Amino acid sequence: MRIGELSRRSGVSVPTIKFYLREGLLPPGELTSPNQADYADGHLRRLRLVRALIDLAGLPVARVKEVLESLDAGDEALHHRIGAVHRALAPPRQPAESDDTRAEAQVRELIEKRGWAIEPDAPAIATLAETIAVLHTLGQGDLAADLDSYADAVERLAEREVAAVASRPDTDRIAESVVIGTILGERLITALRLLAQEHVSARLLGPASGDPRAE
Amino acid sequence: MRIGELSRRSGVSVPTIKFYLREGLLPPGELTSPNQADYADGHLRRLRLVRALIDLAGLPVARVKEVLESLDAGDEALHHRIGAVHRALAPPRQPAESDDTRAEAQVRELIEKRGWAIEPDAPAIATLAETIAVLHTLGQGDLAADLDSYADAVERLAEREVAAVASRPDTDRIAESVVIGTILGERLITALRLLAQEHVSARLLGPASGDPRAE
Repeated sequence: MRIGELSRRSGVSVPTIKFYLREGLLPPGELTSPNQADYADGHLRRLRLVRALIDLAGLPVARVKEVLESLDAGDEALHHRIGAVHRALAPPRQPAESDDTRAEAQVRELIEKRGWAIEPDAPAIATLAETIAVLHTLGQGDLAADLDSYADAVERLAEREVAAVASRPDTDRIAESVVIGTILGERLITALRLLAQEHVSARLLGPASGDPRAE
Repeated sequence: MRIGELSRRSGVSVPTIKFYLREGLLPPGELTSPNQADYADGHLRRLRLVRALIDLAGLPVARVKEVLESLDAGDEALHHRIGAVHRALAPPRQPAESDDTRAEAQVRELIEKRGWAIEPDAPAIATLAETIAVLHTLGQGDLAADLDSYADAVERLAEREVAAVASRPDTDRIAESVVIGTILGERLITALRLLAQEHVSARLLGPASGDPRAE
């Protein structure tokens, strides 16, 4: 398809598509004449992915580029590419304000106890340790006391998520699904969690007995 | 305590504390002389909360102010204050690019089926519907097919979270815990989910049989 059709089908303006091409977020089309290029369905898919990363995940263009580069490292073994994608998507760490050493030991103990195969330098370990340490600083350490319940929940969900993603027809689409599933799955969980909390709050803290909605 | 001690104990500089006071993020101290004020432990707690909202949740100052205002609406019933906090913390919606009507019906059906007591205009409903619609647009609708598993997981976690929060000594601290628990709990789940996915990916997609870490 020509760039005009790519724009219509994706809802992304031609100047924006040209910007993505210049920035390397979108691979060049196949030249059919000196100033005309042809784009395939893969371009449309990639364009939608770029928009999801920018609009929904709120990633800056530079980080989108990092994520796409790890996605495109086609010579790597699949689970290494997925690892690279996870690393690129990990929430950026804040400069540590509190002592995370104890919290980090707690996280490593959890990983060992559960028999999780995790690279020892996975950035999510530091993010998790820092989050636990901040909860303690804020006097809310009990909210992180039962890490095992959270780990149970996410492990069960990961089993389904990875199985769904593994059913994709080729490794490029698997890697793409990992990116989308990580980001949009997070958004899905966040929104559902707010709803569940609203419901449970109304039941436990609201005028429950008199409120017919509460049971 | 004087402003210098508040700064030392919180790790926030005096000029930043003065900025928060001017912006109304921190209530004024008690004047002990025309240009000297005394701050209490409540100020220290509030200051740590402000830092968590800015540094960890990445909220802009204007939204921090909204969250704090809903937190401080002391004349409201507790579960209404919590509702207001949830609304202020809901991820901002993107302008809809796709047709969310079907997805929204799916979300309302889920809520009804589970008997969740949710205000019909809760912003998380729209966020969730939009996320599902985008997953469909990106050809990854199957990742949202099993909403019930996600709902099971977050409902179980919400039971524990709300019970922990409800054990706080007064309503101000309950509301504060809701803010911190919502934001930091999300971060905790995100980080743990990345770890669980790394583990399950290595097992399902990696060179599993030869890798002793994989079981």
